[in-house]
Amino acid sequence: MIDTPAFMPVGTQGSVKGASPRELRELNTQIILGNTYHLFVRPGLDVIKHFGGLHNFMSWNGPILTDSGGYQIFSLAKLRKITDEGVEFQNHIDGARAFISPEIAMEIQAALGSDIAMVLDECVPYPCEYDYAARSAELTTRWAKKCKAVASAVSADSGADALGTAHSTAPQLIFGIVQGGTFEDLRKENAEAIVDLDFDGYAIGGVSVGEPEEEMMLAVESAEPFLPAGRPRYAMGLGTPPQLLEMIARGMDMFDCVLPTRLARNGTAFTAAGTLNLKNAEFTLDKRPIEENCACEACGQFSRGYMRHLIKAEEILGLRLITLHNLHFYLNLMSRARTEIEGGTFDQFRKAFETEYKTRDAVIA
Amino acid sequence: MIDTPAFMPVGTQGSVKGASPRELRELNTQIILGNTYHLFVRPGLDVIKHFGGLHNFMSWNGPILTDSGGYQIFSLAKLRKITDEGVEFQNHIDGARAFISPEIAMEIQAALGSDIAMVLDECVPYPCEYDYAARSAELTTRWAKKCKAVASAVSADSGADALGTAHSTAPQLIFGIVQGGTFEDLRKENAEAIVDLDFDGYAIGGVSVGEPEEEMMLAVESAEPFLPAGRPRYAMGLGTPPQLLEMIARGMDMFDCVLPTRLARNGTAFTAAGTLNLKNAEFTLDKRPIEENCACEACGQFSRGYMRHLIKAEEILGLRLITLHNLHFYLNLMSRARTEIEGGTFDQFRKAFETEYKTRDAVIA
Repeated sequence: MIDTPAFMPVGTQGSVKGASPRELRELNTQIILGNTYHLFVRPGLDVIKHFGGLHNFMSWNGPILTDSGGYQIFSLAKLRKITDEGVEFQNHIDGARAFISPEIAMEIQAALGSDIAMVLDECVPYPCEYDYAARSAELTTRWAKKCKAVASAVSADSGADALGTAHSTAPQLIFGIVQGGTFEDLRKENAEAIVDLDFDGYAIGGVSVGEPEEEMMLAVESAEPFLPAGRPRYAMGLGTPPQLLEMIARGMDMFDCVLPTRLARNGTAFTAAGTLNLKNAEFTLDKRPIEENCACEACGQFSRGYMRHLIKAEEILGLRLITLHNLHFYLNLMSRARTEIEGGTFDQFRKAFETEYKTRDAVIA
Repeated sequence: MIDTPAFMPVGTQGSVKGASPRELRELNTQIILGNTYHLFVRPGLDVIKHFGGLHNFMSWNGPILTDSGGYQIFSLAKLRKITDEGVEFQNHIDGARAFISPEIAMEIQAALGSDIAMVLDECVPYPCEYDYAARSAELTTRWAKKCKAVASAVSADSGADALGTAHSTAPQLIFGIVQGGTFEDLRKENAEAIVDLDFDGYAIGGVSVGEPEEEMMLAVESAEPFLPAGRPRYAMGLGTPPQLLEMIARGMDMFDCVLPTRLARNGTAFTAAGTLNLKNAEFTLDKRPIEENCACEACGQFSRGYMRHLIKAEEILGLRLITLHNLHFYLNLMSRARTEIEGGTFDQFRKAFETEYKTRDAVIA
């Protein structure tokens, strides 16, 4: 049971960068994301199967959502060849060739034992020609159908564990992904086609890939009306704090984003007034915590000046503390959004938050 | 009050690399070491004074011993010019010139507010000519006398805080340092000369600087009989676990060493059977913890195989977990030594430990 809206810290390679499972629990993290592509490349599926699945391997007993690997194949891997059957690629670590089909993507995620698996999709870049986006959305639909067929076969196979999955206590949920680039009619058509396949939840993919924010909002708005009300909606790979609130206002329930952990490693902290780049000299003598009245462990004990020193001196503790703060900021924002939604005051809250929030430093999202 | 023998994790730049103050407390760390040279160079004394001293700056409320900075000036800094008055150098970060005298070394440590300060000494390299070692030991004695004079002036100055020290609740203790290279007579003479000056404790410096282990043991054995029984004896910059036990057998009480934290960052873990290099392929499928029955947080939750993956994938959590384990190993070794000493069984324990302990991998100490 996950309370939504929910933010999923990204555990790329079997670890949320800079944080321990204990720290994630202390932050009240409900669910984390695992990147199938990264885990498939290293340590490899055999290793994770040997350890009884991703939960056991990384010692995280909360829910895990895994992506299909598609996004990384299209953004990181080399020499891709896409056919109706799947995608052939060379991984970015040792260049080894591999082939992933919709069916294989489901088998891999079953072996990882995640609680929520994503269908294999093609994520088109921005900008993208209409014709390519249209053909790609059709391919994504055909692949989704194949993923659904695998998932149905598994759930029909009640006793035995045909795919060697480590996940046996609860059925793995499967989410479909809506593509369609920045084109309103393609987003609508693809949403309808994917929803026709009846998944446990629906994601909007192919957003936050470099397009202007208005185009991102339009892509979500174009698909959203066609998603069923009773199923979770997941906006993939988003975003800044105001973007998350805008997405919640547009009916989105789940988010994942590397910003809180990635920016922390660069010394950037999130606050209600925008981001702080703690490398800046202005913080050298600053005795305040990152944010006054913040309940996170970093703000309870450490000054901006100390954290600036740690980041400048490349001490690991610096990025650890900012990571804790940033994850707390994102998770707390979701918690606050839930409260405001329940109280019927979300819209006022969102507007007030966005007014106060200014990006103090140039942040690349 | 520190129970000895005691191991001091090294907090080079205001942070024990890879560990948080909370983790250090949970490991029952009694005292940590701060490197005056590093802190003097970055963030600089004015910053640490502004934050009310090193304890406040780094949020560590346990005892801190600071070194004098001499060792790093002689090993890291450039363009050194040593005179009777002190040492002029260019720091290794931005090349800025600075001058440290025995008096200034004491003033800096008073401003840092450490609980134990070390006198400024010259640490000669290995190998070192007899004549140079002799002259250097005499210089170290003259400098020690000057440090003692400053310390006495401060403790006589009961009310006001002449040096701007942040340390006001308990008097700062001052430890003398015995030098003399690898020469038995120089070690003896220097020990007598330093003890004549009446310090709160005595360190043996200039050991573990590249000399063969027998020469290191001889240096300690040569000085030790001349150190007063009632004062703590600190063997600086040591060492491997068997070396620590050998030093305890030779009457040493306090130790500091970067090995547990530095090797952890390279994927090497300490165990009773020697070190494990967790990068090795042999650990890929190893479900065991680093060490069976180890009470540390890493061994309680994580497998060798997972830690190997983290280190290979350069995930921060990997070095964090091994750092926790290694610090626990060193601190626990001291705790065990105390128990064995109390029980009158230390010698048997030491021999049994050394028999079991083999360096599985090439470790540069």
